[in-house]
Amino acid sequence: MQGKTKDKIILGIDPGTNITGYGLIRIAGAEPELIAVGVIELSKYNDHYLKLKHIFERTIAIIDEYHPDELAIEAPFYGKNVQSMLKLGRAQGAAISAALSRSLPIFEYAPRKIKMSITGQGSASKEQVASMLMSILCFNEKGIILDATDGLAAALCHFYQSGLPSVQKSYSNWKDFMKKNPGRIK
Amino acid sequence: MQGKTKDKIILGIDPGTNITGYGLIRIAGAEPELIAVGVIELSKYNDHYLKLKHIFERTIAIIDEYHPDELAIEAPFYGKNVQSMLKLGRAQGAAISAALSRSLPIFEYAPRKIKMSITGQGSASKEQVASMLMSILCFNEKGIILDATDGLAAALCHFYQSGLPSVQKSYSNWKDFMKKNPGRIK
Repeated sequence: MQGKTKDKIILGIDPGTNITGYGLIRIAGAEPELIAVGVIELSKYNDHYLKLKHIFERTIAIIDEYHPDELAIEAPFYGKNVQSMLKLGRAQGAAISAALSRSLPIFEYAPRKIKMSITGQGSASKEQVASMLMSILCFNEKGIILDATDGLAAALCHFYQSGLPSVQKSYSNWKDFMKKNPGRIK
Repeated sequence: MQGKTKDKIILGIDPGTNITGYGLIRIAGAEPELIAVGVIELSKYNDHYLKLKHIFERTIAIIDEYHPDELAIEAPFYGKNVQSMLKLGRAQGAAISAALSRSLPIFEYAPRKIKMSITGQGSASKEQVASMLMSILCFNEKGIILDATDGLAAALCHFYQSGLPSVQKSYSNWKDFMKKNPGRIK
């Protein structure tokens, strides 16, 4: 076996009590590659604890399967009301606890920051984000659940924010972004 | 070894990111007995994840030490603002994940319900709750941190709500409570 540098793997997760999206990318050299993208489907469970238990256990299972080095989490810091924020906080708490129990470093990004990082627009639609992800990571799944791409987007955002010199951290608009990142659209 | 019925042990917890209070009671026959009361001190940690990690890990450690049968959790359903509810939700999510990972059934009680159950007054002060707990569970620690008694109060509230026939579930006021529960004050 050769002394090859271990690729870095980033797990991105977008916790929610109805659906939790996740995605994994491998950083081979300076290029991100898709490993997996999926959802933890929770709307079928009526019991609130069963939902949290599944978020916790499935996150652990994903970590144990893919051995990511870091967790990037989509974390809104405000919401419609205190009830929904408490619920969201619990879902985040379950996913974060799973990562902490496996000693993963955690990085949080606001939804707007993630959208900005991937598409150059903080107000981009889920479809725009998904389309850009497919282009950057060279995959094509039209039937993909958009919540799944939110997790993946968090992972990719973290990669872009991790200080690679080629990364522009902000763009005034979509055109500006496209101009500064001609290679991002393949 | 004799075929003695196993006593039921209830862990009560009041999660918070500055201080998390906990208490354990044993139900021997129909009487609650104090096993332990304490706090997980978190204000010394600046890092939010370190706080969550400690809530998760200490809750696991308490469960593994005392082997409770059920978890009762103090859970406010509303708060000052969405920020504080998100934080609280995460703290609750960490404690709940710890309990779920040890397959403990979980029961939630609003603060008002707990105060009502222990003192007969939904608006009782922390001092009144602590004083009643010391009286019911026959201990006396004047220096006890009041947040610790909140966890213990959740455990005792759960015991009272678990359907023992002697338990009155509501009282019109403090006097009414004292009248109906002459044995509660020793």
